[in-house]
Amino acid sequence: MRPPAPARTLAVELADAEPGTFVTLMGHVHRRRELATVAFLVLRDRSGLAQVVVRPHEVPDGGLPPEETVVEVTGRVAPNARAERGVEVTMPRIALLSEPAATPPIELWRPTVTAGLPTLLDHAAVTWRHPCRRAAWEIVAASLRGFRRTLDDAGFTEVQTPKLVGTATESGANVFPVDYFGRHAYLAQSPQLYKQQLVGVFERVYEVAPVFRAEPHDTVRHLAEYVSLDVELGFVRDHRDVLDMLRLALVGMLDAVSTHAADAVDRLGLALPVVPAEIPLIHFAEALRRVGASSDEPDLAPEHERALGVWAREELGSDLLAVEGYPLRKRPFYTHPWTGEPIEGGPWSNSFDLLFRGVELVTGGQRLHRHKDYVAALEARGKSPASYATYLEAFAHGMPPHGGFAIGLERWVARLVGAANVREVTLFPRDLHRLEP
Amino acid sequence: MRPPAPARTLAVELADAEPGTFVTLMGHVHRRRELATVAFLVLRDRSGLAQVVVRPHEVPDGGLPPEETVVEVTGRVAPNARAERGVEVTMPRIALLSEPAATPPIELWRPTVTAGLPTLLDHAAVTWRHPCRRAAWEIVAASLRGFRRTLDDAGFTEVQTPKLVGTATESGANVFPVDYFGRHAYLAQSPQLYKQQLVGVFERVYEVAPVFRAEPHDTVRHLAEYVSLDVELGFVRDHRDVLDMLRLALVGMLDAVSTHAADAVDRLGLALPVVPAEIPLIHFAEALRRVGASSDEPDLAPEHERALGVWAREELGSDLLAVEGYPLRKRPFYTHPWTGEPIEGGPWSNSFDLLFRGVELVTGGQRLHRHKDYVAALEARGKSPASYATYLEAFAHGMPPHGGFAIGLERWVARLVGAANVREVTLFPRDLHRLEP
Repeated sequence: MRPPAPARTLAVELADAEPGTFVTLMGHVHRRRELATVAFLVLRDRSGLAQVVVRPHEVPDGGLPPEETVVEVTGRVAPNARAERGVEVTMPRIALLSEPAATPPIELWRPTVTAGLPTLLDHAAVTWRHPCRRAAWEIVAASLRGFRRTLDDAGFTEVQTPKLVGTATESGANVFPVDYFGRHAYLAQSPQLYKQQLVGVFERVYEVAPVFRAEPHDTVRHLAEYVSLDVELGFVRDHRDVLDMLRLALVGMLDAVSTHAADAVDRLGLALPVVPAEIPLIHFAEALRRVGASSDEPDLAPEHERALGVWAREELGSDLLAVEGYPLRKRPFYTHPWTGEPIEGGPWSNSFDLLFRGVELVTGGQRLHRHKDYVAALEARGKSPASYATYLEAFAHGMPPHGGFAIGLERWVARLVGAANVREVTLFPRDLHRLEP
Repeated sequence: MRPPAPARTLAVELADAEPGTFVTLMGHVHRRRELATVAFLVLRDRSGLAQVVVRPHEVPDGGLPPEETVVEVTGRVAPNARAERGVEVTMPRIALLSEPAATPPIELWRPTVTAGLPTLLDHAAVTWRHPCRRAAWEIVAASLRGFRRTLDDAGFTEVQTPKLVGTATESGANVFPVDYFGRHAYLAQSPQLYKQQLVGVFERVYEVAPVFRAEPHDTVRHLAEYVSLDVELGFVRDHRDVLDMLRLALVGMLDAVSTHAADAVDRLGLALPVVPAEIPLIHFAEALRRVGASSDEPDLAPEHERALGVWAREELGSDLLAVEGYPLRKRPFYTHPWTGEPIEGGPWSNSFDLLFRGVELVTGGQRLHRHKDYVAALEARGKSPASYATYLEAFAHGMPPHGGFAIGLERWVARLVGAANVREVTLFPRDLHRLEP
């Protein structure tokens, strides 16, 4: 009763199809070109593009379907050196699987995207169909695959922690309030406190999940909701062991991009960075000196990070640069104090930022792991240990020395593909002004 | 200057260590037993347990560390047929890496967990350390790994869609309101509308992410926040193609559990279900008849699902049963009408629920894909197409026939491990009453 599934051929499989045989393609009409005696339909499916040659008598009722219409095309495989992959499809029978499509908000068949950001974002569901936009997301998906693969292989356990939290514990600022059955709740700004507790259970954990920041900043690198790649591991000596694990994760991500998104890398003409065998490391105090900033600056400004990126590229031949030892007072309460050789100034911390091509991509470091150190650190900041009771319980019952990091997914891919704005590589971005689509 | 990393041996690696050599173990003191002339410490690390024999002169200053204290133990590998894996460690040098630990809220070294749910949940960070609790989550993590692996291999693209949405579009009920920079926003109840739009981009997509339901139900199978494994794919003939993909995903999940969580399966003494080559399928109308329910029932009650589960197990030899054709009026507006043979009653839909051991685990089906069908379906339900403008835009620009499903992660694992309550297999559950820890 149920019709058998047609044997579908993907565009990318056409190259291997026997010339002269008949195949069935399914996809969107990417491009429609009508010449005097013949027409061409370029079909787009999940694998790529395929050219279909349409003679006048093969035009379906209602005319040649407009671009973006979804069609099923059965036709003959014919070699043509000028067609994509040296093959095209002739003698087509064309059936419409959707209604004839309305004209898209941007010309999806053009080789590059020239529309402005508002158009791209307002019509995201359609503009993401452009092969160049889509390529950026294929790189995201491959990065995630490589990240998880690397950590799975290194004995990590994936965790899923709650995004609804009862107290705005970590920083208290920039949280979104939620009406939770009539009670006050907040959206989690990070899984930090949970991933640490879970080190006591699984020793090595990671999570890929949205985090929420009510950032009042309207910048090219801030989003109100973004995807955080969080890692936390036990039995580290200090933050440099954490940095070693971060290096492995980045290598795994780039390997996966090369393997699983090779076509996307080609489409965008990218040169992927090479992760050095050891990521160059500079102390915060030295970084300030190098960029000519005052030694009492509490943090690196974006222009400092850019300058350090240029320096790392030109002098060290590296796209990556880790800055370690940030002033302890500028880092969260759970940060472990500096345990390296004494360095003037400070007090410093066992924490780092990783700059990728001059932009902060990752923050990480070693955390405190003794209950009494937490009580002291909280009290020193005027916070009440009682309001962290469930978190501190894990430490009272024994926790290994540990540390971790968080990679901002959108920033990673933005730098990788050279996008000026993280919104370009976010499927449906959320910011101060944007809650749609 | 920096001390070299000690070569660490995991508990599971002890079996391969050369007897007589010295190794360094790191982990929590799982069990401390003091006899008259000798003491035993059982160490727990991420890989398992290892026994350390401590003679009186080897007891560290301050005495034998209490259970859950984190220690580093360097000692000699010694065969002992009665020890775990036939090996123990003698002549230990024991160093404390944490403070001596406080007594845990439950005895973690006992073979089974007997504490009540409130204790387990109130002290989650510590109670998850019990090897049997932890085993359930190892099965979760392996399931996720198998799910993604299967879909990656089948040409799917992982997506990440926003959890902050501007309108409570899908159902309007049971949403959590968020104060979004002074505007009204909501937490997404599902990625449904986004994953459909992305079928127009990637053709096959999946997402693993939290979803939020302000469920006023206080039951053993509802959570306010849970993890949804969402899949959507284009170019399906009907919902049965969707069910075929679901079957593949389940096979992949169970394969991964067997491969990557074999030890956890053993620890819990589980018999994993076998997914039949074809999942048995029954029409909703027939299901009602079979359980003796009135033919005008709009849905299956939990007791009906349980009865169907028993029937599937006993008569069909299957832990899985798909019920297809649910009444169209009870399914969401985007549901595709029934396209199978005419069946009395209805109108029916091309949708299904998958029951796993008598509990609804998955909902799925074919969706509408023509713009005009959406406009008609929304208007028929008294909804305004204008309020779905950005969603409908994808359909105006051509969408393939498609469908998908969503697996509730916690329900899946609860049924797999035989947990009576989904809260037992959720790291930090959220419900009507619980927002902590």
